Amino acid sequence: MNELRREPLLGRWVTVLKESVGPDGYSWRGDTHQGVCALCPGERVDIPTLFQSGENETGIPLVKVIQRETGIFSIEGDLGRRGVGMYDRMNSVGASEIVIESPHHDRPAEDMGTEQMERVLEAYVTRMRELEKDSRIRYILIHKNSGLPSGDTCGHPHSLITATPVIPKRIKEELDGAKHYFEYKERCIFCDIMREEERLGKRVVLKSEHFVVFVPFAPRFPFEFWILPLRHHCSFPEITDEERRDLAVTLGLMLRRLRKLLNNPPYNYIIHTAPIRIPRRNQWHTLGEDFHWHMEVMPRIKRLSGFELGSGMYTLSTSPEDAAKYLQEVSDGD
Amino acid sequence: MNELRREPLLGRWVTVLKESVGPDGYSWRGDTHQGVCALCPGERVDIPTLFQSGENETGIPLVKVIQRETGIFSIEGDLGRRGVGMYDRMNSVGASEIVIESPHHDRPAEDMGTEQMERVLEAYVTRMRELEKDSRIRYILIHKNSGLPSGDTCGHPHSLITATPVIPKRIKEELDGAKHYFEYKERCIFCDIMREEERLGKRVVLKSEHFVVFVPFAPRFPFEFWILPLRHHCSFPEITDEERRDLAVTLGLMLRRLRKLLNNPPYNYIIHTAPIRIPRRNQWHTLGEDFHWHMEVMPRIKRLSGFELGSGMYTLSTSPEDAAKYLQEVSDGD
Repeated sequence: MNELRREPLLGRWVTVLKESVGPDGYSWRGDTHQGVCALCPGERVDIPTLFQSGENETGIPLVKVIQRETGIFSIEGDLGRRGVGMYDRMNSVGASEIVIESPHHDRPAEDMGTEQMERVLEAYVTRMRELEKDSRIRYILIHKNSGLPSGDTCGHPHSLITATPVIPKRIKEELDGAKHYFEYKERCIFCDIMREEERLGKRVVLKSEHFVVFVPFAPRFPFEFWILPLRHHCSFPEITDEERRDLAVTLGLMLRRLRKLLNNPPYNYIIHTAPIRIPRRNQWHTLGEDFHWHMEVMPRIKRLSGFELGSGMYTLSTSPEDAAKYLQEVSDGD
Repeated sequence: MNELRREPLLGRWVTVLKESVGPDGYSWRGDTHQGVCALCPGERVDIPTLFQSGENETGIPLVKVIQRETGIFSIEGDLGRRGVGMYDRMNSVGASEIVIESPHHDRPAEDMGTEQMERVLEAYVTRMRELEKDSRIRYILIHKNSGLPSGDTCGHPHSLITATPVIPKRIKEELDGAKHYFEYKERCIFCDIMREEERLGKRVVLKSEHFVVFVPFAPRFPFEFWILPLRHHCSFPEITDEERRDLAVTLGLMLRRLRKLLNNPPYNYIIHTAPIRIPRRNQWHTLGEDFHWHMEVMPRIKRLSGFELGSGMYTLSTSPEDAAKYLQEVSDGD
């Protein structure tokens, strides 16, 4: 089984794959996706389907979730937390699943209409609700890689669901930051940010019935934007049907704008939600007052240098205000 | 002037350039360095030299430090810390300098012999000692980008010195982690790690008179390695001449091994040292017992995906033990 190791200085967990890749196994020079796409219909039909929704005229599901064959986290086994000398390890128990967002290799969900985007979001919610029943799992992260520089290795529209037995460092930092603010102000920092952005206006890209899209005051990447639900809620899987429909419209629209503006850029998106809220033994438990789920969309048009890696500071060569203006002005027609 | 902004949730500082780049100004598709190299001898002779060492037969300095023209931090002005609504800003006062490591565009310092590597290290030390006299500066980071995927944009062997008016997030985390450990154990965590690695042996790549090179237990990147001085000391600029010479040999050797093993991979290195120790008003002050300066060398042969960006967890497709073995076995001959 793969292993989780805790970095002793920063408390960050990293996963170490059981089967090591040799020095020749890295394809950082490669510019194209390689081989047969395992996510296209008809390929790897041996992998069981965990969720599916919709069907085209030939009976192919429109959205499908499968277990990730080369996934880092696997559902079998126990946590096996143990110290080894001064270090800490555990088994990489959890889940790695792939959401196949479209039966078409070259046609992303956002081009298939709002219903298709809704199916993708439905897949996230359904799988998350299922996975959070597992008492070994503490966090579930949704992320999407699109385009080679984003870490996408297959080119077929897909996103990933990862269930981990620990709360990842970056999530812990956000939770701690939000908690700290709440203790001081007795208000949710995300609600405050939303109000402040609406008051200022200059970084808000658009507002729908249930969501606001804005470029944060100090993001990591140029043209990064966040999608925040207007209703204060800490947990993404508890989204209402109406919100889900609105998010499908908003996300689809924003992804098309991004593509138009930056000429089909590589990007990542992630959903940050509270840790699993079903009360259980020895588990960090949030009341949910101090956290607010949201989506972060990050165009990957700038490479991270040693400065970013060494300092954790980031450089924005386009100001958030200008980025918002550009994103506002993209026309939504063809 | 460029601006520093504090991300309200995580406390991370980001820099926003005064002159925004438009959506067309990003060259993430580009695979080659573009235009005339401004670091080659004879180019941009108008930029004043801050340090130089050695000379070739035609009078060209072998190592030279200049101010970075497009640098983020500039030496003029005051800090101007201010709140704007709920957010925090300050001026990007500090310094951005380039160490030109070689007069030859295609010949890195490590191929010019130990003396040349020593000159590079001397440049770091001399400039750091100079910069730390400036009372507005709180931290100085040395980093190197080599190869396009590492954030290198010019192709000429160089490294960068950045002096910042804040302690960067990643440094603060390391300092806090080391302090926390020291409070608990009354020992330096780096000294303990070094002892543990020597005891186990399986992640140590080599040991010189003054340094140990090892693959950490839980690094961020496959084949990442750290260089730690055997003598406990928190501050890199206080390195002795003898240590500096030994580091020049060790670093040169390791960079050549990395190149051989991974077929000239892109990489970054960074030096993590304590914040400036000259006592001054309102400044975080380290006694130096709990920190230990070191170098981190990170091959960039794997792209960061949305999972890493969203979780702060990393995946090692080559185990640290295997990576150490490969790095041990590279032959140092031609």
